Amino acid sequence: MLESSLRDRLRHIAVFEGAAGEQLDALAGRAVLRRFLPGEIIFTEGEPSAGLWILGSGRVKAYKLSPDGDEYVLRIFGPGDTFNDLAALDGAPNAVSTSAITSATAWVIPAADFAAALEADHSLALAVIRGLVGRQRRLVAQVEDLALRPVTARLARFLLEQVKDPTLAHPSVTRALIASHLATTSESISRSLRVLERAGAIRFDRHRIVITDVAALREEAQI
Amino acid sequence: MLESSLRDRLRHIAVFEGAAGEQLDALAGRAVLRRFLPGEIIFTEGEPSAGLWILGSGRVKAYKLSPDGDEYVLRIFGPGDTFNDLAALDGAPNAVSTSAITSATAWVIPAADFAAALEADHSLALAVIRGLVGRQRRLVAQVEDLALRPVTARLARFLLEQVKDPTLAHPSVTRALIASHLATTSESISRSLRVLERAGAIRFDRHRIVITDVAALREEAQI
Repeated sequence: MLESSLRDRLRHIAVFEGAAGEQLDALAGRAVLRRFLPGEIIFTEGEPSAGLWILGSGRVKAYKLSPDGDEYVLRIFGPGDTFNDLAALDGAPNAVSTSAITSATAWVIPAADFAAALEADHSLALAVIRGLVGRQRRLVAQVEDLALRPVTARLARFLLEQVKDPTLAHPSVTRALIASHLATTSESISRSLRVLERAGAIRFDRHRIVITDVAALREEAQI
Repeated sequence: MLESSLRDRLRHIAVFEGAAGEQLDALAGRAVLRRFLPGEIIFTEGEPSAGLWILGSGRVKAYKLSPDGDEYVLRIFGPGDTFNDLAALDGAPNAVSTSAITSATAWVIPAADFAAALEADHSLALAVIRGLVGRQRRLVAQVEDLALRPVTARLARFLLEQVKDPTLAHPSVTRALIASHLATTSESISRSLRVLERAGAIRFDRHRIVITDVAALREEAQI
């Protein structure tokens, strides 16, 4: 059954870890499964939110567009990640646009159902707080990176995250995507990759980047 | 009484709006009042957190330092604002450094007491979620600004925030502070101010910046 497979999945998602069984059943019962092709837009910034999204399979990116059409990738999500949490929580329009990088499936839980579960379940509220705090720390680090670190340090930090977060090491995460995530150009990423290679922090295995020295990479990341 | 004045103040702080009376009494009873001189460091990034801070009077800034000593001002707080919420919520080290811009007084509620109140009071948890969502939307906008907008657009957006948030219009908010908040130099801020003046969006009244045309300023802000 679709609902029971989602319920099992919800149990393993950080934000739902503390939630009561009946809350999970109710949420799983209200969720709608959607399928996306590579490149397909899932939702657009500024539009009303469909609710809380949970990625089933594939990879999606959350991004912002400048008035000139430049794209900045805020975050890349992998299976089990929730996305559009902010709009689901405050009922305001989508804060970002999101599209599928690969083929993807995702469930959406309507915002009103999520809000009702949150109202009823204190443990769920505490789990949501933990989730928001983790994301906010990550955003603070991202702001710090953009404001204070040169591209090579940003790239080194991004590569260090790969060690912790295999989502980022997926083959669909191209140099162009990394460049957009670090607010720079592909050429600049290629230059910085060569700097990191010369520092002995990484090597190239065909087109794959292999981290060879985490300590050297940490030094380049200036952390 | 100090405690009762803090309790009255807590009632008017967004994060405590839904909290039960006895929770507020307990928190106010555990809070410690501290006084700071202009420029004094309140706490340092990476150190253990003292708890949740509530600004009583004055202005403080939260900032990050680069390895080279460059400062990036993440946020400026005014009376009634809470700060260091993240560290108070997850018990991890301080995410940022904070210092007083002016003379300031602030209460600190030990993290353990805040955690206990959160555990006991569902309404407080829901209010904390609202607070975190608001901050997170602001951080997403800040990341977007840094990644995608030129300095003049960032400055125009900052000035528009002044209309909503009088904290930012305080005389202690100097050009150097604005430059650090927008991750640029004072010279670049001066250049951008002249661009905005020529566009008719602002004028100078001695050294004070006066917004003369909100629509023109919105256009320059690219929003």
